[in-house]
Amino acid sequence: MDNIDYYEKSLQLHALHKGKLEVVSKVPVKTQDDLSIAYTPGVAEPCMLLAANPENARSYSIKANTVAVVSDGSAVLGLGNIGGLASLPVMEGKAVLFKEFGGIDAFPICLDTQDTDEIVKTVKNIAPGFGGINLEDISAPGCFEIERRLRAELDIPVFHDDQHGTAIVVSAAVINAFRLLGKPLSDVRTVINGAGAAGNAIAKMLVLLGLRDIVVCDSKGILSASRIPEFGEDKLELIEMTNKEGLSGGLAKAVKGRDLFIGVSKPDVLTGEMVRSMRRNPVVFAMSNPEPEIKPDLARASGARVIGTGRSDLPNQINNVLVFPGVFRGALDSGATDITEDMKIAATYALAGLVSNKELTEEYILPPAFKEGVAKAVAKAVAAAWKRPGA
Amino acid sequence: MDNIDYYEKSLQLHALHKGKLEVVSKVPVKTQDDLSIAYTPGVAEPCMLLAANPENARSYSIKANTVAVVSDGSAVLGLGNIGGLASLPVMEGKAVLFKEFGGIDAFPICLDTQDTDEIVKTVKNIAPGFGGINLEDISAPGCFEIERRLRAELDIPVFHDDQHGTAIVVSAAVINAFRLLGKPLSDVRTVINGAGAAGNAIAKMLVLLGLRDIVVCDSKGILSASRIPEFGEDKLELIEMTNKEGLSGGLAKAVKGRDLFIGVSKPDVLTGEMVRSMRRNPVVFAMSNPEPEIKPDLARASGARVIGTGRSDLPNQINNVLVFPGVFRGALDSGATDITEDMKIAATYALAGLVSNKELTEEYILPPAFKEGVAKAVAKAVAAAWKRPGA
Repeated sequence: MDNIDYYEKSLQLHALHKGKLEVVSKVPVKTQDDLSIAYTPGVAEPCMLLAANPENARSYSIKANTVAVVSDGSAVLGLGNIGGLASLPVMEGKAVLFKEFGGIDAFPICLDTQDTDEIVKTVKNIAPGFGGINLEDISAPGCFEIERRLRAELDIPVFHDDQHGTAIVVSAAVINAFRLLGKPLSDVRTVINGAGAAGNAIAKMLVLLGLRDIVVCDSKGILSASRIPEFGEDKLELIEMTNKEGLSGGLAKAVKGRDLFIGVSKPDVLTGEMVRSMRRNPVVFAMSNPEPEIKPDLARASGARVIGTGRSDLPNQINNVLVFPGVFRGALDSGATDITEDMKIAATYALAGLVSNKELTEEYILPPAFKEGVAKAVAKAVAAAWKRPGA
Repeated sequence: MDNIDYYEKSLQLHALHKGKLEVVSKVPVKTQDDLSIAYTPGVAEPCMLLAANPENARSYSIKANTVAVVSDGSAVLGLGNIGGLASLPVMEGKAVLFKEFGGIDAFPICLDTQDTDEIVKTVKNIAPGFGGINLEDISAPGCFEIERRLRAELDIPVFHDDQHGTAIVVSAAVINAFRLLGKPLSDVRTVINGAGAAGNAIAKMLVLLGLRDIVVCDSKGILSASRIPEFGEDKLELIEMTNKEGLSGGLAKAVKGRDLFIGVSKPDVLTGEMVRSMRRNPVVFAMSNPEPEIKPDLARASGARVIGTGRSDLPNQINNVLVFPGVFRGALDSGATDITEDMKIAATYALAGLVSNKELTEEYILPPAFKEGVAKAVAKAVAAAWKRPGA
């Protein structure tokens, strides 16, 4: 099927079911006794336990396994700022994936505000019933402050998937691509095109993994010291850890002599000529969705050795669905109150490790979305990496 | 089983399942094609429809059938102010009932604030994804302002069940009790003990139904003109429509010579002597939960002709579960943007009408919770009564 078919079938599906989620009871409610146990008067007893110690919510209520998928709809997929309500079908879909891959009960919370303070306050106000918060499709730079404040102020995991889910899956793909090519990560010269939520988190994660030479471009070109006056806090942070050579200029200049191109930007900005200007055996991850930064055929014809995209109909799909179900599963299972850098790195290596040396090829650097056991392996690693701060 | 058994079994149930709700997919997600239709890229199409016209959310998203069960935990059952988190097991139970009786997907939103402004703002901010808001266990007088403001500012139905669900089911019980006794409602002399959320709404509804002589008591006694200086807006409203004789004093004085006692207060405040002071064939609805205002045996021994309580193990259970699933079902089915007085009255008569003259006895004035078709009948009447304001 091509995209037109998917659009049409999606519309039919959504009209037929009126949305994709259903909230059902896990307990029987067929008799008066059932009611007296699940509801009043019996329910007073678990309520009193939760009132006595909030930690009991993790054992006696849906908080144990429930994640809010929160969006203001300001940066939805390829659609841009369509607002909270219009993002609902995406958030429903995300909740479907949480259940299917992670066994997690996720519920969409679509916001009627795009104000940072309001979002922080609203999420805090509704947090008690949730075991975790997945922030989704919230635009930069607001997303950085929202996540930072919520992580600091809530005692449940808060995770902006567009940042960290993407950073983890891309990092796993990077690890495996250069494992295949036999090149140490510390020698890899990288260009990231896109300095929004995803680009920002990817750069930070690659630095943690030991990549030393990274340049980041936004729509105006290379993030360079000369542009500091125009930067907000997020880009100031980026420039501190990237572009050690002090390059400036456009994408073509940034790409030249690189081993790795990571695109989280827009369709068709990477030319064949640019790919030819990269070092030997270039790796091209063109993840703009649904149309990549360069058509894979053109990338290959221009010498790209390993090619990944966001698309499910091409080899090497680099998709967060490999990450977020396992990350939250692991966080919930371990009772983590945060998702730390250690947990993200553990998720990255666990995911990369799911492709054995024997399986690893130019067209198979990551397990496919539906491969059995992905979320479980990620969850196990994430749970093991959880350490209470100061413990 | 007695209550101790219910408490124990409830604790076991909640520990076993870790809460009572599950969020599941209504659509298949077993193949890559399924994903491409339910999620990206296909999902862009319903998103664009919602962005073009928010009304489309009622046809293409879970907004069609989803209700938020919102509580700040300030007035939970017999437990009092236990806070939002500790109220979660009750709100889960409410969601279970919504699904079981109304086929509605309800999700608990337990708040971390008890501030009126904050609650209003928070509910407005999360409203886009919901087709209705059920306010639950929020204490008076805050509940009145919260509901009034949300009804005015949102274009989806907002319904404080402790007020209106209770008022509707009590009113239906009143209609049928006096149908049985052959007394016109306009002749019924009523005392309501309890001037919180429920007492307030019951008084207003009974006035709408044509009852003319009502006195209301709070914990300090009869609401009378002499107490006006101590009253907030809610009790001022009450005093305007009740106590036409200008009575003052305690509960005993209020009860004397009445046909109908309605208790939404606390255990054992109504004595046998008080019941004996009522008019002939008194009707006693003692709905304090789990322990009623008077033990039914004592009420009967003291001459009460029709006795109702909130308890499921006694005849004439007067329980909101007969109301809210049908009210929301009808509101969602009709696309109502509000739940109007007309709709509440329609629900009341529909519910009363479910007991035929042949079925009606002193021990059967309302259908039991599990009687087939209750919510459907209420929903039909509610939907038919919906009229867009000004239409």
